[in-house]
Amino acid sequence: MINNHTPHNRTIEVCLSPALIDLFDIEHSIVVVIDILRATSSICVGFENGADHIIPVSTTEESLAYREKGYLVGAERNGEMLDGFDLGNSPFGYMGPHIKGAKIALTTTNGTRAINAAKTANTVVVGSFLNLNALCAWLKEQDNNVVCLASGWKNAFNLEDTLFAGAVVDKLIEEFSYSSNCDSAIASQHLYRLAKDDMYGFLENSSHRKRLERLHIESDIEFCLTPNQTTAIPILKGDCLYNLKVLEKANL
Amino acid sequence: MINNHTPHNRTIEVCLSPALIDLFDIEHSIVVVIDILRATSSICVGFENGADHIIPVSTTEESLAYREKGYLVGAERNGEMLDGFDLGNSPFGYMGPHIKGAKIALTTTNGTRAINAAKTANTVVVGSFLNLNALCAWLKEQDNNVVCLASGWKNAFNLEDTLFAGAVVDKLIEEFSYSSNCDSAIASQHLYRLAKDDMYGFLENSSHRKRLERLHIESDIEFCLTPNQTTAIPILKGDCLYNLKVLEKANL
Repeated sequence: MINNHTPHNRTIEVCLSPALIDLFDIEHSIVVVIDILRATSSICVGFENGADHIIPVSTTEESLAYREKGYLVGAERNGEMLDGFDLGNSPFGYMGPHIKGAKIALTTTNGTRAINAAKTANTVVVGSFLNLNALCAWLKEQDNNVVCLASGWKNAFNLEDTLFAGAVVDKLIEEFSYSSNCDSAIASQHLYRLAKDDMYGFLENSSHRKRLERLHIESDIEFCLTPNQTTAIPILKGDCLYNLKVLEKANL
Repeated sequence: MINNHTPHNRTIEVCLSPALIDLFDIEHSIVVVIDILRATSSICVGFENGADHIIPVSTTEESLAYREKGYLVGAERNGEMLDGFDLGNSPFGYMGPHIKGAKIALTTTNGTRAINAAKTANTVVVGSFLNLNALCAWLKEQDNNVVCLASGWKNAFNLEDTLFAGAVVDKLIEEFSYSSNCDSAIASQHLYRLAKDDMYGFLENSSHRKRLERLHIESDIEFCLTPNQTTAIPILKGDCLYNLKVLEKANL
């Protein structure tokens, strides 16, 4: 079979905050939305555990309204699960039999908002260290340029999302011949290479780790920084995230 | 004399794009505006060479209108000096007898716009590698927190401005006991430490160096990356930049 891809012309860029997304040509790109601590990690875990689909919504009210339609409803604000919801933002909450086949509506401080900010992209997928290799292998097979979108914290730059963006840049440039003329991609790659042998230690002084310290979720953080625990690739179709492989099997 | 400063409580943050400035409490901070290639470097050189004051303006029309008031007028767009102006954005244009005592109006693609974006700050000063040590020594004597504002390129992140922000972070944290809870400050410091022994080489693949390559201004770039060639600290008073030392001598 002839491979019609044009791998030498594809580019990878990094958008360090949802507030900067208008600087990028996302209409013709695949956007990888990143919220390592913890929305996009939890979403990947949800699909690994058989979730049917996940609807990212902007407000807690929208999320709650889905309960009467048979959804599990999830909400996190400032790092904490809100009262009256089934799920928060911990990846461990997205494991177990209650997730298999579940329809989930989820709102988080940053991640689900970033997914919605990227809606005009050619394609939106969800990335985390948990699906790093699977995601990059899939990107390699696509024709489009890639923009990694770091969710950050309320539009501010954050370190862990940038490290993951750097991991994607490193893989796509070094292994799959993508190019980049984007300084934030170069910076992210440098930071990832500095950090990769001990990401947990590297992030010790980061703002978000300090923010989460009071919540005693060190095990969440260690888990979210451990690469390649799933091959699930969540992809946005309309307003819903699905597991790409399940969609492909169903020929949707 | 009793020193009333409270050096242990001061913080340093980095704003990676003028589009993100609203995330920072600049009303109570000193903002260091950074446009290494080349506006803030040229402004520092102008004061080193005796410029009386420099007015950063947003448009070429505004700049040109100052000519009839006896000003030297400067304008750069997309890296090039515009026809009909006395000065562009090369630091070498800001040396020589025509600068001594001159009043200058200047508009550039990024730097002068960033200065104007910071106008609501407690204090606005101009930084470049050229005045690094003098600037940091002065900051140390002030009571305010510091926000480094990278001008970037049309609101996009750029590497050389981030490296200089990292140099300021490194000095203020390591030598002067500032603290930071800001991920972009941590990232900038890491990148500066990676780059500092060969900044020119480190920037070889950066977007702006590539952008400027066609202009054959390698000597401008080498000059702008050479630390501590002046002790001038440009400071904004009203709409004008002055040389801080000259202001202090005149007790203004």
